[in-house]
Amino acid sequence: MATEIERKFLIKDDRWKTDFSGVEIAGIAYRQGYLSTDTDATVRVRRQGDQARLTIKGKTQGISRAEYEYPIPLHDANEMLDTLCRKPQIEKIRYRREEGGLIWEIDVFAGDNAGLVVAEVELESESQLIDLPAWVGQEVTGDDRYYNVNLVSNPFKNWS
Amino acid sequence: MATEIERKFLIKDDRWKTDFSGVEIAGIAYRQGYLSTDTDATVRVRRQGDQARLTIKGKTQGISRAEYEYPIPLHDANEMLDTLCRKPQIEKIRYRREEGGLIWEIDVFAGDNAGLVVAEVELESESQLIDLPAWVGQEVTGDDRYYNVNLVSNPFKNWS
Repeated sequence: MATEIERKFLIKDDRWKTDFSGVEIAGIAYRQGYLSTDTDATVRVRRQGDQARLTIKGKTQGISRAEYEYPIPLHDANEMLDTLCRKPQIEKIRYRREEGGLIWEIDVFAGDNAGLVVAEVELESESQLIDLPAWVGQEVTGDDRYYNVNLVSNPFKNWS
Repeated sequence: MATEIERKFLIKDDRWKTDFSGVEIAGIAYRQGYLSTDTDATVRVRRQGDQARLTIKGKTQGISRAEYEYPIPLHDANEMLDTLCRKPQIEKIRYRREEGGLIWEIDVFAGDNAGLVVAEVELESESQLIDLPAWVGQEVTGDDRYYNVNLVSNPFKNWS
C-alpha cells in the first residue's frame, strides 16, 4: 500500500500558466470514471494520455489515505469507462509545475465541471511545511465537494 | 474484455470427490471480498493460494458477463481484504475436475456459507451442449442467491 498525503488549493489567478522557470510541461488530458463511489473504498478507472490505471483509495483520514494503483490496458479502460462507470465522468487537463522543490498538479476541469481549477501538492508527511507559490489561493483540502469522486454526483456547474 | 459464460449447479452427492479418472487435483483455498457490490459493476479482491487478483465484472446478461481481471501483489490483496472489503468475506476451497472435456470447478464454502457446495462450468458459447457428470444436481445458473457477491450480504447460514 502507498499512502497518499495531499493538500489541495484553489488558484488565485493565471500566473501558474506563465510564471515559472524551466521547460513548460504541456497538459495531459485525463478522463476518469468510478466503479465504486463508496467513501470507504473508491475504485477509479483513469485514462491519462495513452496510459490507463485502476486505482483503489481508502477513506481519507486527516490529509492521508491508502492508495493502490495498477496499470491496465488502455483498451480495457476505454471499455470500462464507456460501459461500466457511472456518468457523468471527470474530464480535465492536468498541468505539472515544480515550485520550491515540490511538484504541483493543476487540474483544469472540463465538461460538467468546466470553470473549476484546483492545484494539488503531494507531501512526504502530514507535518511537512511548504512554501505556497504566489498563484495559490484558498486551501480546500478537507472540503468533500472537491473530491473528484464527488464531482461526478455533484458537478461544479450545479454549485450555487 | 473477456466474456465469462458460465453455468452453475448444485451437487447431488459426494461422487465428485472420488469418481474421476486421472490425477487428483488438491483443492486451493480461496478468500475473496468486494470493494463494490453494485450489480452494474462488482469489484472483487481474491486470494487463491499464494496468488491474488482484482476482478471487475459487469452485469449478467443471460449466462454471460463482461470480466476484467488483473494480477495484483498478494500483500496488497491481504491489506485490501483486511481493511477495505466488506464483511463477511467469502471463504471456500475450490476443486477442479475434468469431465467430458470440460473443467468443472467445485466450490466448497466455509465460514458463514459452510454447507454450500456449488459446481461451475465455463463454456465457449451460450448454446454449447454439455454432458452433465453423474454427481451434478439442480441447475442454479440464474438464481441470484448463489452469486458469490450475494453470499456476502445473505450468507447460506441465513437461508431458510
